[in-house]
Amino acid sequence: MNITETCKRVKSASLRLAAADSELKNKALLNIAKVLSENKDKILKANQEDVERSKSENIPAPLLKRLRFDEAKLNEVLDGIHSLVRLDDPVGKTLLSTELDDGLELYKVTCPIGVTGIIFESRPDALVQISTLCLKSGNGVLLKGGSEAKLTNRVLADLIISATESAGIPEGWCSLLETRSDINELLKQDKYVDLLIPRGSNEFVRYIMNNTNIPVMGHADGICHCYIDSEADPDMAVRIAIDSKTQYVAVCNAMETLLVHRDIAGVFLPEFKKAADERNLELFGCSQTISYIDVSPASEDDWKTEYLDYKLSIKVVNSLDEAIDHINRYGSGHTDSIVTANSEHAAHFMSLVDSGNVFWNCSTRFSDGFRYGFGAEVGISTGKLHARGPVGLDGLVIYKYMLIGNGHIVADYASKSRNFKHNKMNKDFPLGLK
Amino acid sequence: MNITETCKRVKSASLRLAAADSELKNKALLNIAKVLSENKDKILKANQEDVERSKSENIPAPLLKRLRFDEAKLNEVLDGIHSLVRLDDPVGKTLLSTELDDGLELYKVTCPIGVTGIIFESRPDALVQISTLCLKSGNGVLLKGGSEAKLTNRVLADLIISATESAGIPEGWCSLLETRSDINELLKQDKYVDLLIPRGSNEFVRYIMNNTNIPVMGHADGICHCYIDSEADPDMAVRIAIDSKTQYVAVCNAMETLLVHRDIAGVFLPEFKKAADERNLELFGCSQTISYIDVSPASEDDWKTEYLDYKLSIKVVNSLDEAIDHINRYGSGHTDSIVTANSEHAAHFMSLVDSGNVFWNCSTRFSDGFRYGFGAEVGISTGKLHARGPVGLDGLVIYKYMLIGNGHIVADYASKSRNFKHNKMNKDFPLGLK
Repeated sequence: MNITETCKRVKSASLRLAAADSELKNKALLNIAKVLSENKDKILKANQEDVERSKSENIPAPLLKRLRFDEAKLNEVLDGIHSLVRLDDPVGKTLLSTELDDGLELYKVTCPIGVTGIIFESRPDALVQISTLCLKSGNGVLLKGGSEAKLTNRVLADLIISATESAGIPEGWCSLLETRSDINELLKQDKYVDLLIPRGSNEFVRYIMNNTNIPVMGHADGICHCYIDSEADPDMAVRIAIDSKTQYVAVCNAMETLLVHRDIAGVFLPEFKKAADERNLELFGCSQTISYIDVSPASEDDWKTEYLDYKLSIKVVNSLDEAIDHINRYGSGHTDSIVTANSEHAAHFMSLVDSGNVFWNCSTRFSDGFRYGFGAEVGISTGKLHARGPVGLDGLVIYKYMLIGNGHIVADYASKSRNFKHNKMNKDFPLGLK
Repeated sequence: MNITETCKRVKSASLRLAAADSELKNKALLNIAKVLSENKDKILKANQEDVERSKSENIPAPLLKRLRFDEAKLNEVLDGIHSLVRLDDPVGKTLLSTELDDGLELYKVTCPIGVTGIIFESRPDALVQISTLCLKSGNGVLLKGGSEAKLTNRVLADLIISATESAGIPEGWCSLLETRSDINELLKQDKYVDLLIPRGSNEFVRYIMNNTNIPVMGHADGICHCYIDSEADPDMAVRIAIDSKTQYVAVCNAMETLLVHRDIAGVFLPEFKKAADERNLELFGCSQTISYIDVSPASEDDWKTEYLDYKLSIKVVNSLDEAIDHINRYGSGHTDSIVTANSEHAAHFMSLVDSGNVFWNCSTRFSDGFRYGFGAEVGISTGKLHARGPVGLDGLVIYKYMLIGNGHIVADYASKSRNFKHNKMNKDFPLGLK
């Protein structure tokens, strides 16, 4: 089957999946957990082959670590499925209900988006997380994982597909794409695919965004900032800045630029430098920074760079507003944090910084679906429409307007023989999914 | 100023406008009403010139009607502004609040999208509606109206801009584009413009969608259906079908194809034909339709055609599912209605038809922001992300995650020296806009 046919098949299944009730979807999720558990050996064996082959191809150690899918990882994934079963169904929720007139009732009700295409890194656990999130939210899904994990992905996808279809989920709701060229074909399927979620390097995500008419949810850069306000507690500021930068450097919510108010720079910067040196951080500073501590000079490019490494740029600013302007100019709209004891400064920062996650007195590293309590996430969005920040189940649904009448026609209202009432009802959509 | 400079200026103002509170925005809205009212003569004179010029250019009568902006229209527009003032501010609403841990509180709070570019038909009242909706929702706006209304638009935009800026709204939040070539420049400004809403012909909207990286909200086609189920009341079915088709033919929520279950075709179609003939409807039918009533044969193209005229295609189907499949295949995801006395059939139709508005026993013509009670609308969306159906104030906002801590760092949770609590709080974001 070519990609167009595959996408068409997933689309067709997704239309029927939209009407699957919570009981059926949860039954299918539990069946996935059962089947994965029963086929543990098969999965681990496939993964062993992927790992051996990747080792012989000398892939970097962190990649190898993410690729490995052992019994502990499998148990984590199974726990994840059981948590997902316990979460509320995001579909079929009535968001608004209005009595337009006697017997004419309007409901705004959540429903799946349709077909999502998700392109993800070589992490077999991601395949299970993503496909189960799509199932719970009633979406068809096209999966494309990193090629290092191809054997593991194939076994997992086959098991998930048979477990769900035997539980009664419409055939064809989930499909695995296997080659790089499949991705380019996928980008053309705007007739059948409603949403793409690419995860991976900046360049890759940007490529996807620039080469498709399908709406894309995700983030290219993660240029996050901490701003140390004039009224910050210096100890807290050092702790938060060090955690934001070094707790895990290779991730999108790590800090890349530290902004420091000039009134606190003399106290804060030497303290920070001490802590940074202990962690072998390489620092690049503006000319004012250099007047306080011994660091390399930063260039304009440093403000635009996502190091993803033990490197950090530092700028001294003259005001809160200068910090906000810097963030809105150079940031990527991901996560930015202010450290201050002044709540008005915090409110000003949080109102004016145009990012999906704006923090006060805590580390940028908290912006994550698990830490937010959403369960697993399909990705993090820096877009300004639909979903922003960590995207979990709620980001995979949209809504329909459902209007129930009893022979009502517009001519009666145009002639003023009837008038709209527009009474708020606070009532759930009465029909359910069939 | 060129378009890039203009967009940059609106973007910069929009960042500050995001922090404007309800009082300031409402004060500015009331000032618009006051200034428009005070400058009534100037506005009507400019419109008179637009109308005279357009008459001499022989523009069609319906267009001329929409272009005309008289005292009655002005009063409607002023009423609209006063209603908008009374509506809740869509910005700053807490959608979710979670205690992640002691003293670490997460809030999901609505905020403006940023900068919207709205391209609309030659209706001066639309300029006022759109700009005031954007203001109330805290968005900067680039306006491009139809050239027939250029003098009226210029006067209205100047008055709105001076009325709002003198009330304290950030300078540059609103800008009027005046030429066709400005539109092409606007399409390139994805760095500064967050959302485009084009209104107008199918071809125009499709052109915009295919020629920009900026997210577009809107609809190209409006191919709406009524399905007359086997268990429909024939009288109600005729009333709803006639209203859906003929109450106003030139609009996107008018029916273009009528689907009829074979078991009711013999009763319904002759009745419908009688009513259609009284209104001079031209009918195109499938071969089964032709076996019941005397109509021209329909071709495959008819199922894909938005007539926007006194024309209608009719198809007899063998089942509810065949009707649903037809709608999902040929429809545009706008508005589709089922007429039936059977609530299970209605539920099945409403679950499976993949459209923004799905109706039971009422006319497709109800899908409209005013009729839904939303106040004015910026447009109708057939997309599957962010906003669907009539888009009012709520469609012009997104949200931010705001996290308030007290020195919290992720390292403490990674080391398990602290654990997340994830308690739902039901508490409003405590800081407000500053």
